Amino acid sequence: MLFQDTLNEIGGLHTEMMNKAQARLDSLSKPLGSLGRLEDVVRQLAGITGEFLPRVDKKTVVIMCADNGVEEEGVSSCPRSVTSSVTQNFTRGITCINVFTRHAGADIVVVDIGVDDEISCEGVLNRKIRRGTWNIVKGPAMTREEAIKAMETGISIVKDLKSRGVNLLGTGEMGVGNTTTSSAVAAVLTQCDVNLMVGKGAGLTREAYSHKINVIQKAIEVNSPDPGDAIDVLAKLGGFDIAGMVGCFIGAAACRIPILIDGFISSVAALTAIKIKPEVKNFILPSHGSAEPGSRLVLEAIGFEPMLNLRMRVGEGTGAALAFHLVDAAVAAYTQMGTFQDAEIEQYVPLE
Amino acid sequence: MLFQDTLNEIGGLHTEMMNKAQARLDSLSKPLGSLGRLEDVVRQLAGITGEFLPRVDKKTVVIMCADNGVEEEGVSSCPRSVTSSVTQNFTRGITCINVFTRHAGADIVVVDIGVDDEISCEGVLNRKIRRGTWNIVKGPAMTREEAIKAMETGISIVKDLKSRGVNLLGTGEMGVGNTTTSSAVAAVLTQCDVNLMVGKGAGLTREAYSHKINVIQKAIEVNSPDPGDAIDVLAKLGGFDIAGMVGCFIGAAACRIPILIDGFISSVAALTAIKIKPEVKNFILPSHGSAEPGSRLVLEAIGFEPMLNLRMRVGEGTGAALAFHLVDAAVAAYTQMGTFQDAEIEQYVPLE
Repeated sequence: MLFQDTLNEIGGLHTEMMNKAQARLDSLSKPLGSLGRLEDVVRQLAGITGEFLPRVDKKTVVIMCADNGVEEEGVSSCPRSVTSSVTQNFTRGITCINVFTRHAGADIVVVDIGVDDEISCEGVLNRKIRRGTWNIVKGPAMTREEAIKAMETGISIVKDLKSRGVNLLGTGEMGVGNTTTSSAVAAVLTQCDVNLMVGKGAGLTREAYSHKINVIQKAIEVNSPDPGDAIDVLAKLGGFDIAGMVGCFIGAAACRIPILIDGFISSVAALTAIKIKPEVKNFILPSHGSAEPGSRLVLEAIGFEPMLNLRMRVGEGTGAALAFHLVDAAVAAYTQMGTFQDAEIEQYVPLE
Repeated sequence: MLFQDTLNEIGGLHTEMMNKAQARLDSLSKPLGSLGRLEDVVRQLAGITGEFLPRVDKKTVVIMCADNGVEEEGVSSCPRSVTSSVTQNFTRGITCINVFTRHAGADIVVVDIGVDDEISCEGVLNRKIRRGTWNIVKGPAMTREEAIKAMETGISIVKDLKSRGVNLLGTGEMGVGNTTTSSAVAAVLTQCDVNLMVGKGAGLTREAYSHKINVIQKAIEVNSPDPGDAIDVLAKLGGFDIAGMVGCFIGAAACRIPILIDGFISSVAALTAIKIKPEVKNFILPSHGSAEPGSRLVLEAIGFEPMLNLRMRVGEGTGAALAFHLVDAAVAAYTQMGTFQDAEIEQYVPLE
């Protein structure tokens, strides 16, 4: 089956090519290691692609759109209908991710993986599993089979993009209520306290905050997912949007395409994918740390540090799209800078 | 005189235009405030320029190049001649700042403000104050008059760029030994311990680290600058590169051009400019937090938080050039995103 087969396809990084890339980085006319994390990015791209000069000129953000049953608990500041409206607006060029991908020379793929509406506008891929998940306070969000189907949706989309030559991916989502589902999944997978995961900083009153915490705690109690089985956690507490993104991360690893995390929800999907298959981590890059307090905790659980610190909380893949510029810059420095020889400078030995 | 006249020209921000910009940001189809610090950037640009739709399409990084007498104490891992070589390489398109500014659609202006060499290559502005400062361990780096002349050099260059329509500036430098001079200036201006300012993380052995600390402490002792007189601190412990950048910050404030800090050395120049005239701060934006430990301390002293966290330590203006993309993205979102009305979504009231 596609899911298991794809997991089996995931290999390791080309360490020899990473060493070659590092040797070139060290030959460039700059203090050793002084490009910092941009050097890590280059080394990782070389390891993923097996190419000495990896290309990142065909970028796409995949946006998974779905509704979440838990919205009926009143955990979100906006009505359920916003999921459908924004999903359609992605095709009109007026959303933030449209602006940021245009600016970065990237494409978007908009996926209806479970919006609670009939969406027929051109430019939205219909991959609807169902019109929104069930309410996690009352039982599982979806069946295990649906979770796998949603992940396979992400996998198939990435495989298709691979065949079209896409060489850098970003992840994005739209789904009213999905910080609640993400917090629930993250709290179980990281074994962190729900209070820390939600935090009070995201524009919630004390009442709304307490309510959200209660909803998440109740959802965890009612479903009692197995923390050692990430698919169980995803199916019981997640959403189609998150599951679709998990599939994107797994698919990207199998297809050997570097893939950027966006914000909190995307980071939870990345963590879930890594819990399912740890080797997936090698193919993932962080982008920004979002304003959601759980963002830092989940990135730490993965072992990542954000490159951008902008306190954004738009979602949609906007942080990933901004990080495209950094990946581009890393590759540009690596391929276009002169070596010490070009620069006619004797390579100086650092004081170490 | 130019220096004092320029300080007198510095006005406040257009708060009314900042409010108008915020009102537009709030009308865009996204959760209120969710673009985080990019909204701060937009508001600041509106306040600086007084324009409802500020433009940032003509970007330039000014690179101040100079030698530092303290190099003879063996505080740097590379020989003095590297300052001249790299300064000339800026005109050959092969340095990191060349790559990053090309990528960001920006220009560079390379200024020889005190390189210890005769540089006659085209593309380097000859504004040499002197062939390198004196050794700060033995006495002041320069006279107060030279410090003012170096600042006026930065001011004049910025005023010229203003007349050519430049609307976004970055600051950069090249000067062997300038982390030592910067650390000395920063330690006095922030009253932080020299040990904290230098740190052990920058690829120094324990011996080289101790030596650098001793050199800085001795320079402070020998010169005993007046911490309340930033020009005195700059003249006694700084360099022509730092002083030139101080002038750029002051000039940008007078010309009402937003100007980005680069890394540690640039941040010390920004702090110095702000100590000379606090209103300069309103016109400055942070970019990245560098790998130099003092970077965080100096940005904190100013009251800034870096937008990028890449552990870079190239200098040259490279962090500022990367941040150009973020300023561009902020303005693009502000000018191109649809409003709630465009998006046909009722503006939802946040739960607060």
